[in-house]
Amino acid sequence: MDPSRRPLNFLMRGINNKVIVKLKNNLEYKGRMVKCDNYMNILLEGASEFYNSNLIANYGKIFIRGNNVLYICLKADILP
Amino acid sequence: MDPSRRPLNFLMRGINNKVIVKLKNNLEYKGRMVKCDNYMNILLEGASEFYNSNLIANYGKIFIRGNNVLYICLKADILP
Amino acid sequence: MDPSRRPLNFLMRGINNKVIVKLKNNLEYKGRMVKCDNYMNILLEGASEFYNSNLIANYGKIFIRGNNVLYICLKADILP
Amino acid sequence: MDPSRRPLNFLMRGINNKVIVKLKNNLEYKGRMVKCDNYMNILLEGASEFYNSNLIANYGKIFIRGNNVLYICLKADILP
Amino acid sequence: MDPSRRPLNFLMRGINNKVIVKLKNNLEYKGRMVKCDNYMNILLEGASEFYNSNLIANYGKIFIRGNNVLYICLKADILP
Amino acid sequence: MDPSRRPLNFLMRGINNKVIVKLKNNLEYKGRMVKCDNYMNILLEGASEFYNSNLIANYGKIFIRGNNVLYICLKADILP
Amino acid sequence: MDPSRRPLNFLMRGINNKVIVKLKNNLEYKGRMVKCDNYMNILLEGASEFYNSNLIANYGKIFIRGNNVLYICLKADILP
Repeated sequence: MDPSRRPLNFLMRGINNKVIVKLKNNLEYKGRMVKCDNYMNILLEGASEFYNSNLIANYGKIFIRGNNVLYICLKADILP
Repeated sequence: MDPSRRPLNFLMRGINNKVIVKLKNNLEYKGRMVKCDNYMNILLEGASEFYNSNLIANYGKIFIRGNNVLYICLKADILP
Repeated sequence: MDPSRRPLNFLMRGINNKVIVKLKNNLEYKGRMVKCDNYMNILLEGASEFYNSNLIANYGKIFIRGNNVLYICLKADILP
Repeated sequence: MDPSRRPLNFLMRGINNKVIVKLKNNLEYKGRMVKCDNYMNILLEGASEFYNSNLIANYGKIFIRGNNVLYICLKADILP
Repeated sequence: MDPSRRPLNFLMRGINNKVIVKLKNNLEYKGRMVKCDNYMNILLEGASEFYNSNLIANYGKIFIRGNNVLYICLKADILP
Repeated sequence: MDPSRRPLNFLMRGINNKVIVKLKNNLEYKGRMVKCDNYMNILLEGASEFYNSNLIANYGKIFIRGNNVLYICLKADILP
Repeated sequence: MDPSRRPLNFLMRGINNKVIVKLKNNLEYKGRMVKCDNYMNILLEGASEFYNSNLIANYGKIFIRGNNVLYICLKADILP
């Protein structure tokens, strides 16, 4: 496959940017994606946990197992 | 297998077109499919999220993990 | 294994014929199977979506991720 | 492993015989198993679908994706 | 690994003995385990099906797909 | 990886000791772990089954399929 | 991939530190992570189990099967 078309390459370029990670169980994490691999294992820094838009908890560093991920939102300005 | 029969080749040809992506949890995303791989990991641009036909949110770029996908609808004129 | 006994070979011979695809979540799709692979990723053309025998939607081309498939019904005369 | 102990070899010998295939979602299919592979993908001919012992539908040929199978019942005289 | 420690080797030695096979959906099968492989695909002979200790059905030969298995009980005297 | 850091090596050292095995469906088994492999397939001897701390049944030997395991508790003094 | 970007390398560096491990079923374990592998199989020492922030049980050593893990929280000061 033409590498420029690979979605995982794009995801890697989002490293060090703020992201929203939504899990299959509807929990949502906002923070800076400092690490990420092909399974979508993700390390977030300064992460906040939300459920139905309500803040549940704040975490220093949180390591999310990739198989729980529903989607990752990458727009640069999603967080103030 | 004769490559022309492979459904994933067809999916790749849909890149840069508007698609509807339906997930197993019934969430639906409409947007331009800018990247896609064999696991159906998909990067959508200008994505809107729907649940039971109701608009839930708009996203700049959203990266959907392939194992959540139920189907992808490829008809060119699905979106205005 | 004797190739003539492989069920996937049989499925491939159904390409370009009308099929019913039933998913694990009970959604049902009727249409022409234009592509299919060993994971049962399927591209249907002129597809109609049913739930409990009620028509839900019509699609031009729909790409179904194979791991959602429960069964594929192949009788030539299932659709008028 | 001693091949005579492999359960899949036994299953293959059931080809062309009548079987009952029970799925994880409790649907049950009775018919002649014309094809079968190691994933328990199964092609049934003259298949009838049952739910809680009630006949739901008759199919000409039905292709069942193996990962949905709970068990396959092989007794020669299960169907009249 | 020291082969004598492998649990699957032990399971193989249970072949031709009576076993109880409990599935994830709580169905229980009692019978003679005539075949078994590393995925815990199991062929039972003279099998009886139980749910909450109630007899549901008797089967001649039943082939259980391994991924549904919760546990297999191997005590020689579990059945009279 | 430094082998001394591998959690599975540690698990193997627990062989022949009493353990508690908790499954995803909340069933709990207490007994002596006589065999174990990398998938956490486990053979317990003198096993008792509990649900919500209530004793459900006693088993001679029980073979638990690893994919059902939630956790294994290894403290030497968990059982009298 | 540049190894410094791999989230699993980061996780390994958390060995011997206190962590919170949240499972898919919402159980939560706090303790010292003494071992960990790429599947996120984790050995915790001095582990406490919580459900909805209520203490359920204390364990000496608990071995958690990686496929149940939702996330691992690594902030050094999460526990007193």
